[in-house]
Amino acid sequence: MKLIRFGEFGKEKIGVQIDGVNYDVSAFGGDYNEQFFAENGLARLAEFVKANAGNLLEVPAGTRLGAPFARPSKIVCIGLNYKDHAEETGAAIPSEPIIFMKSTTSLIGPNDQIVIPRNSTKTDWEVEFGIVIGKKASYVEEADALNYVAGYVLHNDVSERAYQLERGGTWDKGKGCDTFAPMGPYMTTVDEIPDINNVRLWLKVNGNTYQNGNTSNLIFSVQHVVSYVSQFMTLLPGDVISTGTPAGVGLGFNPPIYLKAGDVVELGADYLGESRQEVIAYAD
Amino acid sequence: MKLIRFGEFGKEKIGVQIDGVNYDVSAFGGDYNEQFFAENGLARLAEFVKANAGNLLEVPAGTRLGAPFARPSKIVCIGLNYKDHAEETGAAIPSEPIIFMKSTTSLIGPNDQIVIPRNSTKTDWEVEFGIVIGKKASYVEEADALNYVAGYVLHNDVSERAYQLERGGTWDKGKGCDTFAPMGPYMTTVDEIPDINNVRLWLKVNGNTYQNGNTSNLIFSVQHVVSYVSQFMTLLPGDVISTGTPAGVGLGFNPPIYLKAGDVVELGADYLGESRQEVIAYAD
Repeated sequence: MKLIRFGEFGKEKIGVQIDGVNYDVSAFGGDYNEQFFAENGLARLAEFVKANAGNLLEVPAGTRLGAPFARPSKIVCIGLNYKDHAEETGAAIPSEPIIFMKSTTSLIGPNDQIVIPRNSTKTDWEVEFGIVIGKKASYVEEADALNYVAGYVLHNDVSERAYQLERGGTWDKGKGCDTFAPMGPYMTTVDEIPDINNVRLWLKVNGNTYQNGNTSNLIFSVQHVVSYVSQFMTLLPGDVISTGTPAGVGLGFNPPIYLKAGDVVELGADYLGESRQEVIAYAD
Repeated sequence: MKLIRFGEFGKEKIGVQIDGVNYDVSAFGGDYNEQFFAENGLARLAEFVKANAGNLLEVPAGTRLGAPFARPSKIVCIGLNYKDHAEETGAAIPSEPIIFMKSTTSLIGPNDQIVIPRNSTKTDWEVEFGIVIGKKASYVEEADALNYVAGYVLHNDVSERAYQLERGGTWDKGKGCDTFAPMGPYMTTVDEIPDINNVRLWLKVNGNTYQNGNTSNLIFSVQHVVSYVSQFMTLLPGDVISTGTPAGVGLGFNPPIYLKAGDVVELGADYLGESRQEVIAYAD
């Protein structure tokens, strides 16, 4: 199943995508939030969709897509989880996963605009494979980790490099600005991806391909990451873990390449669809 | 006004404390959450309390207190914000505020137990003065910052030093474990504190005083911190910013002193009340 949310920012309705067509399932009730995932919502929704097959309303063409789930309790990210990306940034290969957090106020729809923060000069892109938690997870074993996953989502982990690396303290400062987490177009449920550790992902800016990776090159696998994070904090249904980005971010070039108003970022991943963000300057 | 929440964890009811007595105001409706603060809840609640003066039910003695507000969208913390604490940890005095984030799943009531995480050997304490945001805040000027604050709260920013400092990556790994954010007993509204940059705060373990500070020694003031954080992320009503801890944490001693099962932590601050946490070991 592919979950979508559509309509005005903050007032999104729920839907599903079937064979490339978006359908309104708001009659199912509620939102794709902690309660939905915790209360077996995916299975109930699948029943609902089956029972209403042929009678679901199509979402009108041109309708905005929101993030495919409600604001989660947290967005946890794994840093430097691809060897080639660690190398391009001049960082050491981590011996265990690096964790940081994005403010959830950064979450936007897949095709919304990325706003360059006021005074920012180093806003950068990062295509990532995101994990959506389906079940409360604490001290989960790696072998059992996928039982706690509801699905996966395409994520552009937009990052302000000066805020992240030059302003003191932890990376969180450069990761949680408004609009810095476009997610979607949809959340793909676990059953639809044969091998999550073999998913190609790519990103283009203004038509030029900068990132072209595969989750097979993750230093720490999807299973490992879920288990690992759950040793340090309880993951709630609907929470997101973003697994890190492969090489090809703007910071890795000499000289670095950063986003500017008017740029267009396009990204995609096998099974997770594609998204497109226009970059604009902050306006008071 | 002093807001409290009471009852079973996750099912807390709302209340107020007046002259040291806790009253049930659940008839007011809702919870102390984003919507409450955003929709002028404090003023409406004050009217409700006034209108029902003399008729409010007392909370039965011995009732558990929860955190004095619902789970916020984020808990942002400022690191090394007291000179004496930066010095005791061997860190440089920061030239601008250090930001990190606590997983909101760490939030518990003021007198709940602190659980030492599985395999942890370096669980430490940090008494802090917490700010509760009252109004959506983005790019707020320092002179205007207090207009975005609903109140203040006592916070024990419990920290696992090995996870924070020795496991790679950012501090978030050692800050967001379950039970690592006891807050309360109450949230004190802004009008009740004459000078927020002159508030004494202290912490004892097993009756011995370890921390004895004052917000007058903050490197970055309450106003500065609110303004600063709002440059990097939008603060939502009900969000918490914890302003940092003064000297006297366990890490600062030679050899360091860490919490163990059976220890009792007591802390308090002028205007913010006192809290008490018993320390227990993690049990599967």
